[in-house]
Amino acid sequence: MPRKREVVAFQGEEGAFSQEAVRQMLGSALKVLPCPRFEDVFQALQRGQATAGAVPIENTLHGSVHENYDLLLQYDLTIAAETKVRIVHNLIAAPGTTFADVRNVRSHPVALNQCLRFFSRNPQLERVPFYDTAGSVKALMAERPPHSAAIASAVAAERYGGRILRRSIEDDRRNFTRFFLLRRREEAPPLRHRAREGKEWKTSLVFATRNTPGALFRCLSAFALRDLNMTKIESRPLRGRPWEYLFYLDFLGHVEDERCRNALNHLGELADLLRVLGCYPKGD
Amino acid sequence: MPRKREVVAFQGEEGAFSQEAVRQMLGSALKVLPCPRFEDVFQALQRGQATAGAVPIENTLHGSVHENYDLLLQYDLTIAAETKVRIVHNLIAAPGTTFADVRNVRSHPVALNQCLRFFSRNPQLERVPFYDTAGSVKALMAERPPHSAAIASAVAAERYGGRILRRSIEDDRRNFTRFFLLRRREEAPPLRHRAREGKEWKTSLVFATRNTPGALFRCLSAFALRDLNMTKIESRPLRGRPWEYLFYLDFLGHVEDERCRNALNHLGELADLLRVLGCYPKGD
Repeated sequence: MPRKREVVAFQGEEGAFSQEAVRQMLGSALKVLPCPRFEDVFQALQRGQATAGAVPIENTLHGSVHENYDLLLQYDLTIAAETKVRIVHNLIAAPGTTFADVRNVRSHPVALNQCLRFFSRNPQLERVPFYDTAGSVKALMAERPPHSAAIASAVAAERYGGRILRRSIEDDRRNFTRFFLLRRREEAPPLRHRAREGKEWKTSLVFATRNTPGALFRCLSAFALRDLNMTKIESRPLRGRPWEYLFYLDFLGHVEDERCRNALNHLGELADLLRVLGCYPKGD
Repeated sequence: MPRKREVVAFQGEEGAFSQEAVRQMLGSALKVLPCPRFEDVFQALQRGQATAGAVPIENTLHGSVHENYDLLLQYDLTIAAETKVRIVHNLIAAPGTTFADVRNVRSHPVALNQCLRFFSRNPQLERVPFYDTAGSVKALMAERPPHSAAIASAVAAERYGGRILRRSIEDDRRNFTRFFLLRRREEAPPLRHRAREGKEWKTSLVFATRNTPGALFRCLSAFALRDLNMTKIESRPLRGRPWEYLFYLDFLGHVEDERCRNALNHLGELADLLRVLGCYPKGD
């Protein structure tokens, strides 16, 4: 349930896939605050211009968004929720434009490249690179160039009044992005007051160890010896410190459960750095 | 040392960062085969149109390139070398154009977004999205539009005869991409014949386990109990099989050393799938 006067920051134009993530996590009865860069989302939240922020953290084709992990370490916020958004690309045009009218298609090059089979089947369509997917629909509706269409999310079509000419034209349907909803620590509802019945919980953390043989193995014993199930582990070399590694780890469990508390205490003994990024209901 | 008639495939236009990786691994006395998609690189190699291929596998800001890990599992090739390329963005123009002449700058949106501080300091410059970094230099030199520049690698400037007006304008100097050099298995020199003195070796593999508590911990014991040092571990959920995970793992060691052989046999007992992707000299 969104609270009163919820303002949610995300990177990109209105209609970006981040906004779809916001809708999945909080509904649409809220104000959005589109930001140019990921760091602007963190800043808007820290400065109180937003009550929450949504950032992508990993994609099934492109891997983890290290920039947002770095920002999570830099800013003292907490993860309040997670969700996965399937990246569905649609061909969108201004009302009145038919598929037969379209000669050029604008979108972000990454989106254009994710629809190569569609363009092979429709060689009459020229691809025009644009800044951002939702922004390509916004510009299309403002300028109304003849023979043009854009590729973006259904949310972008709806936001700017575009018409979807072809749905789901992406090559790969296994393209999902996982998003975190962030809040200021003091404003996230105290965990012990949240309803926990019937829900699985997930905890995300970052830790560092020196890269000596067996160091990670010892750290993971904190979870394995307590039968806690990990859902993500990823190493990342620390630049400039060639023998040190950061690890991103998610496990199923609630930080206030005794087993989890003990595991975190145990990991704290073994790791050089440990930071819990958040504890939140497991998303679908 | 490149062999006779080496033809190396990579994704992107000539002058792409992949070509810089090729140069670091094999020098420049060779033919290159630019390809539109990553899969085209694997196909060119499999069909014998190329003797080697270079693909990005992870980036310090953007994470692992899962698409190329998937292709490594799909095609029966082997990793013969690795290298890291620092992603340095340069402002490039046609000879005769000075910095004061430039009014618009074209490049791939990801590259434009990695130079935001440069654009803040130079508000007279308009950003124009383009398909690809090296391609933006190629087009610039073909069309010679007045007042235009591009952002790309030094290799692209050299390849197309552009002049570098400003070097290293990227915001973040910690932007590195790791590349693999791929060869057909039967053509990679037999490991036992390679000089191994004074070199550290790395082995890359993929394995899968069911996601039961402790499953990964048991798998990692194969390395920890033999004091083998891992340099990468990353989990990836298998789509459609919610309780199974793929793991990418690199460790320091040569597959023909007894300790490594034993570790791989041990891991083979514990994992549901195990595939060694290659054994190659550790890059810088």
